[in-house]
Amino acid sequence: MNQTQLAHALRFLAMDAVQAANSGHPGAPMGMADMAQVLWRQFLRHNPADPTWLNRDRFVLSNGHGSMLLYALLHLTGYDLPLEQLKRFRQLHSKTAGHPEFGLTPGVETTTGPLGQGIANAVGMALAEKMLAAQFNRPNHDIVDHHTYVFMGDGCLMEGISHEVCALAGTWRLGKLIAFWDDNGISIDGHVDGWFNEDVAARFAAYGWQVIPAIDGHDPDALAAAIAEAQADVDHPSLICCRTTIGFGSPNKAGSHDCHGAPLGQDEIARVRERLGWPHAPFAIPDACYQAWDAKAKGQAAQAQWQAQFAAYQGAYPELAAELLRRQAGTLPERWSATVADYLQTLQANPKDLASRQASLNCLNQFAPLLPELLGGSADLAPSNLTCHAQAKDFSADTPTGNYLHYGVREFGMSAIMNGLALHGGFIPYGGTFLMFMEYARNAVRMAALMQQRVIFVYTHDSIGLGEDGPTHQPVEQLAALRVTPNLDTWRPCDQVESAVAWQAAIERTDGPSALIFSRQALPQQARDASQLADVAKGGYVLQGCEGTPELLLLATGSEVGLAMAAAKVLAEEGRRVQVVSLPCTRRFDAQPADYRERVLPRAVRARLAIEASQADYWQRYTGLDGEVIGMHGFGESAPAGELFSLFGFTLDNVLERTRALLSSQ
Amino acid sequence: MNQTQLAHALRFLAMDAVQAANSGHPGAPMGMADMAQVLWRQFLRHNPADPTWLNRDRFVLSNGHGSMLLYALLHLTGYDLPLEQLKRFRQLHSKTAGHPEFGLTPGVETTTGPLGQGIANAVGMALAEKMLAAQFNRPNHDIVDHHTYVFMGDGCLMEGISHEVCALAGTWRLGKLIAFWDDNGISIDGHVDGWFNEDVAARFAAYGWQVIPAIDGHDPDALAAAIAEAQADVDHPSLICCRTTIGFGSPNKAGSHDCHGAPLGQDEIARVRERLGWPHAPFAIPDACYQAWDAKAKGQAAQAQWQAQFAAYQGAYPELAAELLRRQAGTLPERWSATVADYLQTLQANPKDLASRQASLNCLNQFAPLLPELLGGSADLAPSNLTCHAQAKDFSADTPTGNYLHYGVREFGMSAIMNGLALHGGFIPYGGTFLMFMEYARNAVRMAALMQQRVIFVYTHDSIGLGEDGPTHQPVEQLAALRVTPNLDTWRPCDQVESAVAWQAAIERTDGPSALIFSRQALPQQARDASQLADVAKGGYVLQGCEGTPELLLLATGSEVGLAMAAAKVLAEEGRRVQVVSLPCTRRFDAQPADYRERVLPRAVRARLAIEASQADYWQRYTGLDGEVIGMHGFGESAPAGELFSLFGFTLDNVLERTRALLSSQ
Repeated sequence: MNQTQLAHALRFLAMDAVQAANSGHPGAPMGMADMAQVLWRQFLRHNPADPTWLNRDRFVLSNGHGSMLLYALLHLTGYDLPLEQLKRFRQLHSKTAGHPEFGLTPGVETTTGPLGQGIANAVGMALAEKMLAAQFNRPNHDIVDHHTYVFMGDGCLMEGISHEVCALAGTWRLGKLIAFWDDNGISIDGHVDGWFNEDVAARFAAYGWQVIPAIDGHDPDALAAAIAEAQADVDHPSLICCRTTIGFGSPNKAGSHDCHGAPLGQDEIARVRERLGWPHAPFAIPDACYQAWDAKAKGQAAQAQWQAQFAAYQGAYPELAAELLRRQAGTLPERWSATVADYLQTLQANPKDLASRQASLNCLNQFAPLLPELLGGSADLAPSNLTCHAQAKDFSADTPTGNYLHYGVREFGMSAIMNGLALHGGFIPYGGTFLMFMEYARNAVRMAALMQQRVIFVYTHDSIGLGEDGPTHQPVEQLAALRVTPNLDTWRPCDQVESAVAWQAAIERTDGPSALIFSRQALPQQARDASQLADVAKGGYVLQGCEGTPELLLLATGSEVGLAMAAAKVLAEEGRRVQVVSLPCTRRFDAQPADYRERVLPRAVRARLAIEASQADYWQRYTGLDGEVIGMHGFGESAPAGELFSLFGFTLDNVLERTRALLSSQ
Repeated sequence: MNQTQLAHALRFLAMDAVQAANSGHPGAPMGMADMAQVLWRQFLRHNPADPTWLNRDRFVLSNGHGSMLLYALLHLTGYDLPLEQLKRFRQLHSKTAGHPEFGLTPGVETTTGPLGQGIANAVGMALAEKMLAAQFNRPNHDIVDHHTYVFMGDGCLMEGISHEVCALAGTWRLGKLIAFWDDNGISIDGHVDGWFNEDVAARFAAYGWQVIPAIDGHDPDALAAAIAEAQADVDHPSLICCRTTIGFGSPNKAGSHDCHGAPLGQDEIARVRERLGWPHAPFAIPDACYQAWDAKAKGQAAQAQWQAQFAAYQGAYPELAAELLRRQAGTLPERWSATVADYLQTLQANPKDLASRQASLNCLNQFAPLLPELLGGSADLAPSNLTCHAQAKDFSADTPTGNYLHYGVREFGMSAIMNGLALHGGFIPYGGTFLMFMEYARNAVRMAALMQQRVIFVYTHDSIGLGEDGPTHQPVEQLAALRVTPNLDTWRPCDQVESAVAWQAAIERTDGPSALIFSRQALPQQARDASQLADVAKGGYVLQGCEGTPELLLLATGSEVGLAMAAAKVLAEEGRRVQVVSLPCTRRFDAQPADYRERVLPRAVRARLAIEASQADYWQRYTGLDGEVIGMHGFGESAPAGELFSLFGFTLDNVLERTRALLSSQ
């Protein structure tokens, strides 16, 4: 079988699977099949038997709707993805979901579908490779040395995030990043001329990329030459512009958006079979074809060769080798637990009133020396987010051993790059911006949660407490938006102790991301006994109890905990039985056993007041139909913070008034 | 006073106001003062006495942190912004908020601060101008004919949205859009070389812009020549690259990020006074300077000249002139109310089970002929969102009379451009994407709410009901995120009638945006009497009552209303007193008088079950501590929709089981 016929195997698996599912996107796989054939059969270094091989090339399908291309590739090259799974494309609990999902399918490096984020993840992976290589390689020991390949379509290039991350890839000179533009001129609304006529090649040249223009995306020789050329330039990321025909081979639908997002139909598929000379039944792949695609032996050999290299490296640099393996495994150093425990004790024993962003910086200064995998950054707010710790060293193209990234004003790009760094392995990335500008990056935060990645989002300036910058910069509803996100831990600590617990939890968590919410302004430290200190990690705990059954529950987080405590003090002096509950992470708290939650928030106590300088509605789930919330009901204002807290009712007087009304109405 | 000295007036007002506030950004105004002086004194056509003049030039400060530049300009040229206000910069309830706020300060065309969105709004304004001109101008009657100017900094250019909207501006050939790049080489993290080294000029050339490179941003003659050159090219938007020094004039802080976001300090300001030869006290502007800046007479004359033109136009085309004024005023045509009322009656009387996205298209087909201001579009999902109605005609550079925009895969750009269209006036923009990809545009939705703009966000494929595309495309927490946004009406209709009410409400609303949430799949139509039909607009109403006091409340929206009704039927047959409440717009419902809300959700009834195929936590605010929610608690899955609804418990059996448990536990 010649190369074009081998590519046809991808095309027919895609067509037939989409047809069987009666749902999916056949056009893109049919268009990109030749690109994939050349890359995967001649260039990609991978081992289907071990999809976790540290030094494998990474492949990202940024236009994830073409998922069947990837499933066909994984199946044909020998991954654990039997034909049976391809036949169950898009069915419940199959390994062939509508869009590629990391963790579900062996060989899928990242979850793609939301356009532009795949290329961003790929930039993160290529960055991880460059940094790990700088940190771990030694003369004659290029232990970390792989490419990152990415396919992307017109849609990815229209999305703003492609601008953010491709500009950074150029600045960072990620020479082993090779991107393929599937230039088929079609998007869902039709021929793209009316909405996408930029000069992509010139744009990428402006970013400092090597651009290889005008390649026939159906010509295997031209594609192979282009990839070789891309590999040869190790100083710049490369863009290979591949002119392709969407739905290649379909007599009536090729080159049209009709084949983008719907099955071709049995009749048209029959015509494609005829046109392309593919007499085989649906899902029937000839043995010769399987043999030509099989990458198992080659992959095994490649990995074996690397293992031998690694053994030599281990001999020469045993500590480095052990450290690389530890970092890739994502386990924390042995001293970690004791160090953190000590630090928490010390903080609790030495009270200090600090802005929690400052407390966060103190944590970084404490933890970073222990954790070389901690990879910091900020979207151009380092001096405000306080993300740049004492041992931080700027990463740049010329200083690749750095551990701090200046992402520029690119929140979405930063966040999706962090996802790519985490997916690659070897790093625990964290990155900062103002809580408000989480919104620019919102879907990447969700993707981290969906992919269960250890990514730490640092969001400072968490409320009207940021003051004069005004409503465009004052978060109101953002905390609620984060808290309702599945699998995302959102921490809003009330002092330096809770801040340290939040950092600890985020670093120790291995099944998902965390959002750490810090204040601009100083927060008073709270007293805790040992048991309370231990309970912080549960996400919610009794910060101040009372004798007997409480009459009133005061719930608060972050900067409002101090207010709740002040009110409780007055009420206690008046003989009221008040229980103050600090809830730094509601998701963690909700996951506690029922008896613990009952102890913290006794069901029978209906006089409940929640206080938080953010949108009020969220808290009604804890205060119920009989409780109340002091929160925000509209946007903020531009003024000094103190005046705003008064204006919006975050005052001792208002809290006391509302609690008394609650107590008297019970 | 020479031009440079006139610019100094801006510099000192900025420095002194920031110093007085002890908060703010002096560096950018000091750097851009010369650009502003040339543009505002020599080119900008505006009338300080009438900031609403239809044909005024628009000026947008995309780097909104430089707000003092704009306030100084407005003050000096004669807007109703007295010196007293400048002295109260960033103070509570002043007209000089930390970032420019539309609606608060006369002459502020849009709220800026979140970077990149100002240039996007400006693209929308320039687009509005081009389209209005195409629709209303007649030979020798160039009634709509103005420029849109925008200042932007490095940060705006790093943001992804700048890519999205500047690419579109090039494609749309917005020849009257003139952007100034404040190329000062500094962002918050320091000198930008390490994170922003793209070739901006080449990038914009790739978008099809006229690029005027390497202008000395402190040379008035060079700036004037550049602006004239930009104006001369009417076929392409223009980028004027202005090399400036941030904090120009500050001996110790110019050219450094030290002057970006903090007051210079009294001592340094004194040194600037000396360096620039400005002996005047803080906030003291010499009369000669005021006179040189005063734009009132010139503005009045310009507007008077236009009014004369308009009078001639009115004489020649009275209907067109009236229509232009109506559209600019944002009032709906006379026939509107009756037409909508008829349509609602007809829909209610002719039940049809439709996907609500199809019902939405039917509304558009019904309403669009009445509303030429309705300006549609989609972020490359027209065939899925069903946003392209029968009378829609594509807009393009060559067909500027079109009323439908193909935004490409650019959700954020689309949304911020819609904000600009609404701010300009003359249009009611609506634009579609999948509900999930609202997240890409999230902050623009918030900005529409903050600016109280009539923008209509159409979000289809609203739940796991989208099926096989899987969790990357299935909204879970997005509805909650929208509902907690202040001043945003979020509608999730349950059938074609509620869909039409939602459209009506969105179109009639003049103080904020609406998000219309539609299903991919068909929804059964519900029966309503006249009073129920009238109550839909209240956002929540009793869809099915019962005799006497209900034992149980069933709350639902959208695709789950049918399920609630089916369960209620079974329970009623069992003799249970069940009240079914449809809550298409919770924000509207929450705003109803207490007695109405009590009738719909009687406080005493604690057996409450909410059913919605989205994140459950939001609904606990209505179900309380004793009720329950059938909702989503994690991400979706890739499978046919029907299987997913079963998998996640949206079945009659589960609803009945949960209601029975609730009833027996009371």
